[in-house]
Amino acid sequence: MNSSVPYELPAYDDVKDAAGRLHGVAFETPLLESPLLDDELGFRLLIKAEVLQRTGSFKFRGAYNRVSRLSADERRRGVVGFSSGNHAQGVAAAAQLVGAPAVIVMPKDAPAMKIANTRAYGAEVVLYDRLKDDREAIGEKLARDRGLTLVRPFDDFYVIAGQGTGGLEIARAARVRGIKLDAVLAPCGGGGLTAGLAIALAAESPGTEMWAVEPAGWDDWKRSFASGQIERAGGHGSMLCDALLSPSPGVMTFAINRRLVKGALDVDDDAVMKAMALAWRHFKLVVEPGGAVALAAAISGALPVRGKTVCVVCSGGNVEAAVFRTALERFA
Amino acid sequence: MNSSVPYELPAYDDVKDAAGRLHGVAFETPLLESPLLDDELGFRLLIKAEVLQRTGSFKFRGAYNRVSRLSADERRRGVVGFSSGNHAQGVAAAAQLVGAPAVIVMPKDAPAMKIANTRAYGAEVVLYDRLKDDREAIGEKLARDRGLTLVRPFDDFYVIAGQGTGGLEIARAARVRGIKLDAVLAPCGGGGLTAGLAIALAAESPGTEMWAVEPAGWDDWKRSFASGQIERAGGHGSMLCDALLSPSPGVMTFAINRRLVKGALDVDDDAVMKAMALAWRHFKLVVEPGGAVALAAAISGALPVRGKTVCVVCSGGNVEAAVFRTALERFA
Repeated sequence: MNSSVPYELPAYDDVKDAAGRLHGVAFETPLLESPLLDDELGFRLLIKAEVLQRTGSFKFRGAYNRVSRLSADERRRGVVGFSSGNHAQGVAAAAQLVGAPAVIVMPKDAPAMKIANTRAYGAEVVLYDRLKDDREAIGEKLARDRGLTLVRPFDDFYVIAGQGTGGLEIARAARVRGIKLDAVLAPCGGGGLTAGLAIALAAESPGTEMWAVEPAGWDDWKRSFASGQIERAGGHGSMLCDALLSPSPGVMTFAINRRLVKGALDVDDDAVMKAMALAWRHFKLVVEPGGAVALAAAISGALPVRGKTVCVVCSGGNVEAAVFRTALERFA
Repeated sequence: MNSSVPYELPAYDDVKDAAGRLHGVAFETPLLESPLLDDELGFRLLIKAEVLQRTGSFKFRGAYNRVSRLSADERRRGVVGFSSGNHAQGVAAAAQLVGAPAVIVMPKDAPAMKIANTRAYGAEVVLYDRLKDDREAIGEKLARDRGLTLVRPFDDFYVIAGQGTGGLEIARAARVRGIKLDAVLAPCGGGGLTAGLAIALAAESPGTEMWAVEPAGWDDWKRSFASGQIERAGGHGSMLCDALLSPSPGVMTFAINRRLVKGALDVDDDAVMKAMALAWRHFKLVVEPGGAVALAAAISGALPVRGKTVCVVCSGGNVEAAVFRTALERFA
């Protein structure tokens, strides 16, 4: 018998349920701030440090919330995921924890560290060509041929609910410290993190605006919000933000985000590398390019934030040394 | 009237008292772990991430515990501290919070980031020559001439008690997660952090061994433990670990540590840079050389830890970009 996944969209109760399941397994990551930097910036900046999450990104939350619900039979047969690297590590680590075999479909040009770590969590890695192959088709074929359960990277009820648990933590930490958040900005590829956070914050911090941030050229969310339907990204952007190169919003994530998200912002590569250098200098955090876009939007003026209190999610830290050194060389 | 500083050594109650004073001002830093890395290492490694502390190092704890106890008159006149950089920022930030002017005596060759940050917290910086001048004499003369209160970097009742608050957090986090700590390793210069932690852990986690870690060539603690009296460091070590170049233990810190600390370990520059690269890769943390010596001791085999559970304090993250890039180039 298969574990059933509800067809409807996840809601606040589902995020709370995910938090119970993740308790003691995922880490509660800190909400960092630097009063010295705030004086320079002219606004109050809080960083939700998801780079400190198990596997080095928020993706473990959603993956574990899904994988931990497999039936005994599904667990024995195993899971398959497709991912540029962070969801890959999340699924591999979650599968290892519940004792399920995992096959992960990853682009050949994914950062070597992400591929190596996914293997280190015991997963079998199947590489594909990002430009020629259809990763969904490969994943679905593997699922059919080998009886694996497909763990989608964002368009999944439990994955979205799991990503939302970080939003509960943000709201609680802000409340405990007496902080009123004007806005939360999150990196947005397929939109699972943004959707999960938006659900949590709409319930726990209704006065807070939720914003999605994309790399320039990968502006599918901005286009989709503008037209009111799912659109593909425009021109060809740079590949720096390897974690955020999904071509269009998910069906579930779009249905959630069009209702709960204020809008989408985009940032260029220089802004991203400046943000990485700033996180290094002021927060002592290692942030990968895709994980730094929300911080980039806040500090580059993509959103007017003077005098406001803004939380940015630094969503992942799995970056190649050469890329990180370049960011420091240019902007530290 | 002056705020009086008790002459005796701080004890467990003084650390708890400091924790009350620091509540809501200092950050409770996370105790991080990487199950993936543990499998590689063959022991369970926990990192107390004091790089995420206010001012980028643990030093804020002790400085604020001292500075927040100034009388109104002392506060008006101001404070003076001498420091290679992290205590400087701690005192400057604490003084700014309580509205006291601060003068900080720093070596000319301190990392530029540490000097710049100390000034950014509003302090007046007086530079001295590490090889020719006596920083204590300069600090004491400034205190006399300008009526300033001297905030010593380690041999101070409240400074030691403040540094110990991190030990309460380590013990509590371990308890909540059901972890039995075999050993805690901390970077050791003047010995204030080690002493504070040792006091806290002796009370809250009596089965845990406390170890002090020094850079090779700056082995004054190892020599002092061996002879049973305060000794100066041996040969001339490298200057890489700028935060740990104190030539001999403090009087108060030695009195505490000889009783509560199991021993001292030393690590060379390569081990330190490897530790910085490992913290970057597996923990997404920026750690400065002096802040990485305890991690270096744990992963280099300086202490036999196979099968054990070991907490290392990564005590500071204020490092120049060029030094950090070199560590990544060589070992990431």
